[in-house]
Amino acid sequence: MQLLNSKSRVLSGSRQQAAAKAVRVAPSGRRSAVRVSAAVHLDFNTKVFQKEHAKFGPTEEYIVRGGRDKYPLLKEAFKGIKKVSVIGWGSQAPAQAQNLRDSIAEAGMDIKVAIGLRPDSPSWAEAEACGFSKTDGTLGEVFEQISSSDFVILLISDAAQAKLYPRILAAMKPGATLGLSHGFLLGVMRNDGVDFRKDINVVLVAPKGMGPSVRRLYEQGKSVNGAGINCSFAIQQDATGQAADIAIGWAIGVGAPFAFPTTLESEYKSDIYGERCVLLGAVHGIVEALFRRYTRQGMSDEEAFKQSVESITGPISRTISTKGMLSVYNSFNEADKKIFEQAYSASYKPALDICFEIYEDVASGNEIKSVVQAVQRFDRFPMGKIDQTYMWKVGQKVRAERDESKIPVNPFTAGVYVAVMMATVEVLREKGHPFSEICNESIIEAVDSLNPYMHARGVAFMVDNCSYTARLGSRKWAPRFDYIIEQQAFVDIDSGKAADKEVMAEFLAHPVHSALATCSSMRPSVDISVGGENSSVGVGAGAARTEFRSTAAKV
Amino acid sequence: MQLLNSKSRVLSGSRQQAAAKAVRVAPSGRRSAVRVSAAVHLDFNTKVFQKEHAKFGPTEEYIVRGGRDKYPLLKEAFKGIKKVSVIGWGSQAPAQAQNLRDSIAEAGMDIKVAIGLRPDSPSWAEAEACGFSKTDGTLGEVFEQISSSDFVILLISDAAQAKLYPRILAAMKPGATLGLSHGFLLGVMRNDGVDFRKDINVVLVAPKGMGPSVRRLYEQGKSVNGAGINCSFAIQQDATGQAADIAIGWAIGVGAPFAFPTTLESEYKSDIYGERCVLLGAVHGIVEALFRRYTRQGMSDEEAFKQSVESITGPISRTISTKGMLSVYNSFNEADKKIFEQAYSASYKPALDICFEIYEDVASGNEIKSVVQAVQRFDRFPMGKIDQTYMWKVGQKVRAERDESKIPVNPFTAGVYVAVMMATVEVLREKGHPFSEICNESIIEAVDSLNPYMHARGVAFMVDNCSYTARLGSRKWAPRFDYIIEQQAFVDIDSGKAADKEVMAEFLAHPVHSALATCSSMRPSVDISVGGENSSVGVGAGAARTEFRSTAAKV
Repeated sequence: MQLLNSKSRVLSGSRQQAAAKAVRVAPSGRRSAVRVSAAVHLDFNTKVFQKEHAKFGPTEEYIVRGGRDKYPLLKEAFKGIKKVSVIGWGSQAPAQAQNLRDSIAEAGMDIKVAIGLRPDSPSWAEAEACGFSKTDGTLGEVFEQISSSDFVILLISDAAQAKLYPRILAAMKPGATLGLSHGFLLGVMRNDGVDFRKDINVVLVAPKGMGPSVRRLYEQGKSVNGAGINCSFAIQQDATGQAADIAIGWAIGVGAPFAFPTTLESEYKSDIYGERCVLLGAVHGIVEALFRRYTRQGMSDEEAFKQSVESITGPISRTISTKGMLSVYNSFNEADKKIFEQAYSASYKPALDICFEIYEDVASGNEIKSVVQAVQRFDRFPMGKIDQTYMWKVGQKVRAERDESKIPVNPFTAGVYVAVMMATVEVLREKGHPFSEICNESIIEAVDSLNPYMHARGVAFMVDNCSYTARLGSRKWAPRFDYIIEQQAFVDIDSGKAADKEVMAEFLAHPVHSALATCSSMRPSVDISVGGENSSVGVGAGAARTEFRSTAAKV
Repeated sequence: MQLLNSKSRVLSGSRQQAAAKAVRVAPSGRRSAVRVSAAVHLDFNTKVFQKEHAKFGPTEEYIVRGGRDKYPLLKEAFKGIKKVSVIGWGSQAPAQAQNLRDSIAEAGMDIKVAIGLRPDSPSWAEAEACGFSKTDGTLGEVFEQISSSDFVILLISDAAQAKLYPRILAAMKPGATLGLSHGFLLGVMRNDGVDFRKDINVVLVAPKGMGPSVRRLYEQGKSVNGAGINCSFAIQQDATGQAADIAIGWAIGVGAPFAFPTTLESEYKSDIYGERCVLLGAVHGIVEALFRRYTRQGMSDEEAFKQSVESITGPISRTISTKGMLSVYNSFNEADKKIFEQAYSASYKPALDICFEIYEDVASGNEIKSVVQAVQRFDRFPMGKIDQTYMWKVGQKVRAERDESKIPVNPFTAGVYVAVMMATVEVLREKGHPFSEICNESIIEAVDSLNPYMHARGVAFMVDNCSYTARLGSRKWAPRFDYIIEQQAFVDIDSGKAADKEVMAEFLAHPVHSALATCSSMRPSVDISVGGENSSVGVGAGAARTEFRSTAAKV
């Protein structure tokens, strides 16, 4: 029943072979120091839903197909649940609560979906406007809702979770289910040396898109087949034997066309890691380095911005989104391919160095501890904006005058960017994450979700408007990517170092390309739309990250 | 007998007043979130040496005066010690071993001073050339020396200590004394959840200069009164009742004109913190930001380098070294004072933000854990050089053509640099470090030891040639200072934000200025000399940090 993580069970014969094969087909040329962790082994035992096999690159994973036709199954999946409380009102909560309420109604069930808020939360009126109300008990104080619910979906910020979890866990009914949309709390609890109460279920559903998209695509899904945001899901603890079905029911209920199994541990590591790498931190760092390089080489500020930032967040991202990373490379003529190869070869290993450091800082608990410490300093040191520097003012001007069709695809920029993306991928692969997760946390979230927002508003603006965890991480690691790319990659290139054939061969043959193709076949049929420069659409990195508004840290 | 740390004893009446006074005279205007820790309380009970009071700013500390006339006291201090083994042959070991051997001979004692090396160490010949020999037992394998010695001075690299300490501790004789020149090992052992064996003494002596200086000034001390390198010392564990006298005897024996008490914890925190801040990391980060700013404003590359790096490592450092930070400010005319004030005000708080983050990452064990993890990745990801970027090539040219008398004292550069130095100071003060330590780890080591090396060879070269711990830390934090100064301070300045009167008033009235004056009165009478561009004099940040050569990580 329980979703197993790699440490808790010996692999069965056939899966052991699959894992061994995954190692065997791994890119060659790695030094002896590399230890490829056992592939995360993800099986789960659903009594209600149908498991399917899917081939992601060299490995097989189970998946579950969602869709509106599965809503009748929610009755069985949610058996015994009378009240679901969604705690918080950030990015995810309004979307997930409304979607679940609609799906439950569609299935003809009478489960109450309620919202829990702090007494002084500024969000009461907004929740009321969405149809939640004090009078019918669907809107109330956090701990009252928690103690009266059979299923508690905790969507307050990471910082608030870190602070409040002892009270939250204590308030839950025995046999109830705790739902998380991010594994961050597990990391916090590990640092604190504590575990979840054994008499509750603990599950995760992490939608691969921001809250507003989760709601918008769900609504489109009523008329457009296949619209919705995919989710990963995990069963951390199954006290009642029903945890997997509750988790999958939750994923399908919020509108996932496909649901991919993971573990809380795998989810928080890949998620916190990914946003520090190519999703946010790395992309910010490298465009700063590229912009400086291009202006020093004589480009005008506007041109340098186009050849770096615009190139990545526009055409390069779109090509990767629809046709994959190899297509970016293959789109170049021979001369530009050479430029790409040199930039890629020189950047890949320095980027991989920082990616490893980030992963191990996340896995060791360092990164989470630093976030918790930073939040405790916010009263004295609130995070300032980072998008007011010279470069980002140039960017504002460039975007205002943008002709989308004229944005260049710079082969040098593409080489550096794709190298950083591949480095992000490769560390997750070596650390044993499933390919569905690798693709989502390194590529799909970048090109389908974050880069389009960056394209509309700027990379630094995007960082300034993310969750604390993502924002702190991006501010911490962007400069590291910037420095190492300038200190190592650019120095190598300028000294005329040739492209590394082995590194290029590994890129061209990497199993992620076919895994990404599988993921693409499971893409929602409707694109995630993005607001423009003056749009009020909320932004936030990390699909599942949520905020308890700006007062999160004070909760 | 034991050197107490702040947690282990209630302050006595008079010292309680002193601590309270220290808080009272602290710079005002701090927000309520600021908790000023109790001043580190440092008393020690020597039966052999004389304690003196010294007033450092608002607080009093004990000190011990050294000098050649104290060598006869070594007989009593080292009573019962027949053999001292110095383990390693990095920066500190040759200096400390030879100085101790000379001092012991001078005192007419027959203690054997020996060297312990790995069997495959490349340093055997060098140690032999310094008079240590296998035949008389003063040169031998590490663990043989440890198990046959009454006093083991462990001067192998941080990385090697982290790896080998269980074997080293196990090999020691009961009742023997373990001597460290850096508290790093305590941080590692805390992360590992273990403590020192209870049947040994554990003490620290940390010379405030690099190994070659420790030897050179000791030799000069034979003819020049007061030449020698000051040391801090600490008693972590006193199993025999003799630990304080062994520690002070060690400090005086290696040539300290003055010895200042601290604790292992206070030492490693301030040391690892300091090198990440103004000593290495911060100074690197801010000169990168300043160089970019000046070139963007239209200066030539050479001029920008002079107005940023040269200005700091040359005249600004020399003024601080001899006359203090206020003198830098007071040396400007009214117009330049305004520029300094604006740069200082805008930079201080952003720098303080990063300094707090660094301190808390050090104190929580994160930073040490990251260093240990990085060293484990060295086989695959060795640290590359960082001094080959465009800016540092400009620097090479500027240094080659340098006319020392024409290096400008740029008031903007001075404002940013002094702000970062004061931020480094202020966090240590708020965290309760004694002023002798604050001055040494934030100011004196910078202007008397590291900046002169940087002036000779470049900031990035200095970083490339430090211990792993310092180098990793500098690579990690330099970019953070760079980004926050550009993102916050420069943006404020360019938007015309006026100087902050309160921040300036705090700077002018800060107690560190008078504490630094006290420290200056205890300066060695001979300056630490520095090699030029092609000198083969070893460099290394962190007075006490040592390397087991380049193979340290493999030990």
